[in-house]
Parts: sequence; structure tokens; C-alpha cells
Amino acid sequence: MAPRRHTLLFTMGDPAGIGPEILVRTLALRALRTQARVAAVGDPEVIDRAAHRARMKLRFRPLDPEQFDPKMDAKDGIPLLLSTSGVWGTFDPGAPSKETGRAAARAIEVAAKVALEGRATAIVTAPISKKALQLAGYPYPGHTEFLGALSGAPETHMIFVGGRFRILLATVHLALKQVSESLRVDSLASTLRYAAMAMRNFRWGPKKPVAVLALNPHAGEEGLFGDEEERVIRPAIERARAEGIRAEGPFPADTFFARSGDAFGVTVAMYHDQGLIPAKMEGIGGAANVTLGLPFIRSSVDHGTAFDRAWKGGARAPDPAGLVKAAQVAIELAARTGGRRLGWSWP
Amino acid sequence: MAPRRHTLLFTMGDPAGIGPEILVRTLALRALRTQARVAAVGDPEVIDRAAHRARMKLRFRPLDPEQFDPKMDAKDGIPLLLSTSGVWGTFDPGAPSKETGRAAARAIEVAAKVALEGRATAIVTAPISKKALQLAGYPYPGHTEFLGALSGAPETHMIFVGGRFRILLATVHLALKQVSESLRVDSLASTLRYAAMAMRNFRWGPKKPVAVLALNPHAGEEGLFGDEEERVIRPAIERARAEGIRAEGPFPADTFFARSGDAFGVTVAMYHDQGLIPAKMEGIGGAANVTLGLPFIRSSVDHGTAFDRAWKGGARAPDPAGLVKAAQVAIELAARTGGRRLGWSWP
Repeated sequence: MAPRRHTLLFTMGDPAGIGPEILVRTLALRALRTQARVAAVGDPEVIDRAAHRARMKLRFRPLDPEQFDPKMDAKDGIPLLLSTSGVWGTFDPGAPSKETGRAAARAIEVAAKVALEGRATAIVTAPISKKALQLAGYPYPGHTEFLGALSGAPETHMIFVGGRFRILLATVHLALKQVSESLRVDSLASTLRYAAMAMRNFRWGPKKPVAVLALNPHAGEEGLFGDEEERVIRPAIERARAEGIRAEGPFPADTFFARSGDAFGVTVAMYHDQGLIPAKMEGIGGAANVTLGLPFIRSSVDHGTAFDRAWKGGARAPDPAGLVKAAQVAIELAARTGGRRLGWSWP
Repeated sequence: MAPRRHTLLFTMGDPAGIGPEILVRTLALRALRTQARVAAVGDPEVIDRAAHRARMKLRFRPLDPEQFDPKMDAKDGIPLLLSTSGVWGTFDPGAPSKETGRAAARAIEVAAKVALEGRATAIVTAPISKKALQLAGYPYPGHTEFLGALSGAPETHMIFVGGRFRILLATVHLALKQVSESLRVDSLASTLRYAAMAMRNFRWGPKKPVAVLALNPHAGEEGLFGDEEERVIRPAIERARAEGIRAEGPFPADTFFARSGDAFGVTVAMYHDQGLIPAKMEGIGGAANVTLGLPFIRSSVDHGTAFDRAWKGGARAPDPAGLVKAAQVAIELAARTGGRRLGWSWP
């Protein structure tokens, strides 16, 4: 028996960016459609023009999101859940605006609603513009927080999945000099709990330890360069252990990725580049950004809207590799969870 | 005609650490000795016992450093330049002390003197202990500064060479939270000058640009997370360009290593782990630490003394891969310079 095909919803992203083009190029991949049931969420004319621009012969079946049934037969076209209409013509391709922010946000809202109702296993998101989102009155820095709010999640975390490592970030979009003051025992212990819950939900070797990286070079070399290892990281590891989580570290980050192989279920990095340099070097086609804390699977490209390359067509057509990777990761995670609703409590 | 065999001096490192053992294991490699003339610098009984412990049948030819002639015939044994004698018995294997620090320092002094006199092209150093060095009254944090002082170098820099990248560190052993305040336009511009001089000395594509990494995630995303890119890094790049150096950046570090391939001669990282995570992931057998600013080539292992694994022998014998890598890098750089004395002025 063939493995069950789970349903993936692809949001179009900001219509002024490269999202619609990489979306149609990804949906055109036959190998993807044999592994999963796919549907798009967006604006019909935007998607249609993107398919035309990318010279993709794709047949869509536009429908009201309420009518969407994950068991729909794809021979009538790829389901296109209408989140807006008439957006084309209200914006300049390549230029984020209030209008594009609103359209991007509506697609996310529709996708989240359908997934929360259990009519999709995963959402795969194309890039959005934080600026456009804010112009449209949505106060979220990105998908992660927006989807967290839509799902009523008490906490969300970003983990990068792709190569040998699964890298969870303890802090994300911060100036490097603010990382130290942002690391606290409480929040780091909570991050370690999410690492353990993710290992259980996604069966990433649930008995394997969680690796915790150090903040400072050589893990501070016994306090010579920085005290965060002793003051924050070790106490957080101790607290996690007291809760039954096999947390280990802090490990000096420079040697960790070169040496550790597949010994750990999840690796917790203290800051953005510490986690994303190795995540992006390791994963072929990059690493997908996965959100922890939602009841459904959500994966995303690890790059931005690339407004300067959007809607040019021809030789300058944007590369869909990041979105393809995000789709592959969503399919893999769906197989690992069996499509079940994800719970985020510990133990 | 076979390529010229340059002379490499190997210092023994801290005698209580793994240095002597990895030294004899490296010198025992026939492939290495066909590519270079090799000599050891150290204490005769320490080296002898290390060879015995590592079960290496190696014949050494002990001699006064003054008598060393790089053209000596190796069939009389590997030249062993005596920097101390009678050190064995004054220390406990595995325990750094004033005595081991002094012996390690003497080997470095002898090697530097011989290289400065033009009787060796490169020094390859085994690991030392900062603590032991300080107990012995040497106020240097490591080889880099010590060799700089012995050579009268106005400035020295650490660059990691091994895989596709050559990664120069703008700051080294600092708490992460101190990196921001340590980055200054003056010193960063000087670091970029050393990148350019290294590319010229070592023929690393001297016409290629120097890549400069950003400090903050997404290079600060237009000032949203940190202003060092605008305040420090761009002005340093501008200054370097005004001096005729093709410096480019600041590049977001997370995507840089995954994407940049071999387009740059040298990559300047802002802090230790930003440079060493990718350096160690890329280089097979790790990355060798090379010192810029000296008139001779100096390469080193990228790991420490590992006192806990020293002098155990048998199955616990330390792996010489890092020192072998350092030797290979020294041989490659010697071929690139033709053994010439290195100059560090710009333009």
C-alpha cells in the first residue's frame, strides 16, 4: 500500500514578491504531487499571472475555502482556495504596500483556519514582507508570531530542518549585542522543553539528547570570556533535566557541527547566525524554517521576498528551490506525525 | 624536476599535553617527509618518550639549533633541535605547570629564531597551554602574539585555512557581548589590509575581492537589528577601497557560506564562532590556524592541549589529524610563496 498522501496548503506570500512565481513553479513538480495532495491559497488573478509569467501550464480549480475538501480529486485542477480577489492591479510588482500586505495576511488567515479545522496537515508558506504586513495593520514580525496568534499558541519557536541537524533558535531577530541580555534561564528552559516536545512529536529520536550550544567562544573557557554559560545556560540545562529532558552542553559551537554527526535529536543555538550558518551549509537546497507550538505543521522558505527579482520572468525567474525544500520537509514531517494534530505539553 | 622541498619546523607544544605524541605521529608519515624537509624542536627525552608511547620507530638526530642546516640529509635521522633538556621528570603528564610552560616557550623561541634567520620556511606548532605559559612568566595569550613579539611584527592576525574558505577573524577570544564594542573602523580597516596582503603573499587569487561579513542577522536589516554595519563595517570597507583593496560586503553571514563558493580571496568574520563554525565544517580534518604578519609561515592545529588525553597511549592515543592538516597547509603555503620571506606592507 502506498503511504498516505497528506494535504499541504501553499500560501502565495506577498503578491509583489517572488512568492506567487515560486509557488507555481513548485506546484508544477509532478514528483511533489505524487507524494502529497496540494492546494494553493491566494488571489486567483495573481496566481494565474504568476503561472503565465513562469510559463507553467497549470490548471487550478478556484473555490471558496469553505468548500475545500482535502480528498478532492486533483484531476479537476489544483484546488485554489480564494483568500482575496481583485488584488492584481492594486499594486506594483516588486513594491510592497498596504494592499500586498493585506492580501498576504488574508492567505495566511485562510490557510490557518483550514488547517485548524483539520482539513490540511501542513501549511507551506511563501515569503511575506514584514513592512507590508505592518502597513496593512498586522502587528506581527513574521509568520511564526502571526500563526501563533491565529492558533492561540502560548509560545512559538523557530527550528530549521534540512540537513543532518535540526536547529532550534533560542533568540532570533536581535542585534548581536543584545543576545546576551535576552538569554534568560526561564525562556531558555522553555526552549529546551519545546526541543523535547518536537523530538516526541516528530519522532526525531525521542530518546536522543538535546544539544545546547554555548554563547561564547570555547564555551567561555572557564569564565575567561563571558559568564552566560554558568549564569544562564547551565541552570537552564539543569532545570530541563529536572523535568526529565536529556539536555547536554553547553558545547563550544565552533567544533560542534564539525564533530557531532547525528548524535542529538535537536540542537539549540543561542542566536540567529550561530544556528543558521551551519543549517544553511548542511542542507542541500537550504534549510526549511518550521514553527513549533502550532497544532499543525508549518514550514517555510528560509529566504525573503526578493522584490528586486519578482515578476521579471525569463532568465531572471526566481529559483523555487527553497519552497521545494520547505514542501519536502513538510511531507517528511507529515509522514512522521501521521497527520495527527500536534500537542505541545510536557511531559 | 620535483618541486622544491621546503623546510618545516615542528614545535613540540606543552610537554604535558598531547603535543609530543601528535608530533611524532605526524613526523612518522612518509608521505609528509617526501613533500617537505622536516625537523622537530623540543626536549629530547620528551620526544623520545612520546615516540615510545606512540609505538613509532623514529630515528632523531639531536643537535644544537645553531648547527641546524636545512639541507641536512634526513638519512641520519630527523633533525631534533634541542630547545631544552632534562624536562622529563619535572612535570606530571597531563598537568600544565611552570616547567611545562617554560619548555613549550623555549621550543617556540628556538623555532622562531631559526625561521627568522632564514633556515626554515615554516613553523608548525603543536598546542600549548596559556595557563602554563603565564605561570612561566610569558605574558602572551597564545602563539600568535608570542611569535608576533619574537618577530617584531607590529600586528598579527589569525586566519583559518582548510576548506573552500580562508577565514580571517576581526576579533578573537572575547565574550560575545563584547564583540560589538571591540569592532572599530581603524582596526577593521587594518584587518582588511592584512586580508589583501595575505592574498598577495599567498597568491589566493590576488585580484579576487575580500568578503566582509555582517555582525548582525540579515546584516542588521536596514538598522532594525543593530547599527554596526552602518557605523563600523561600511566605513571600514570604504576606507579599504580608498586604499585600492577590493572589499565587498557586509554580507549576511547565514547565507554567505552556503552560497559564495570560491568567489572571494579571503572572508573576514567579525567574531570567533562566526568564522570557525564554517571553517571547521568545511575543512576535511579541520582548518589550520595560520598567522598573518610574520616574515615566515606559521600554521597550527585548531585544537587545544587535551591534557586529559595526554600520555595515555594505546587505544586512547591522540589523533594527529589536526597537526597533519597544519603541516599540509604549511606545505601548500610554502609552495605558493616559493619559500620567500613574507612582507606585510600595503600597497
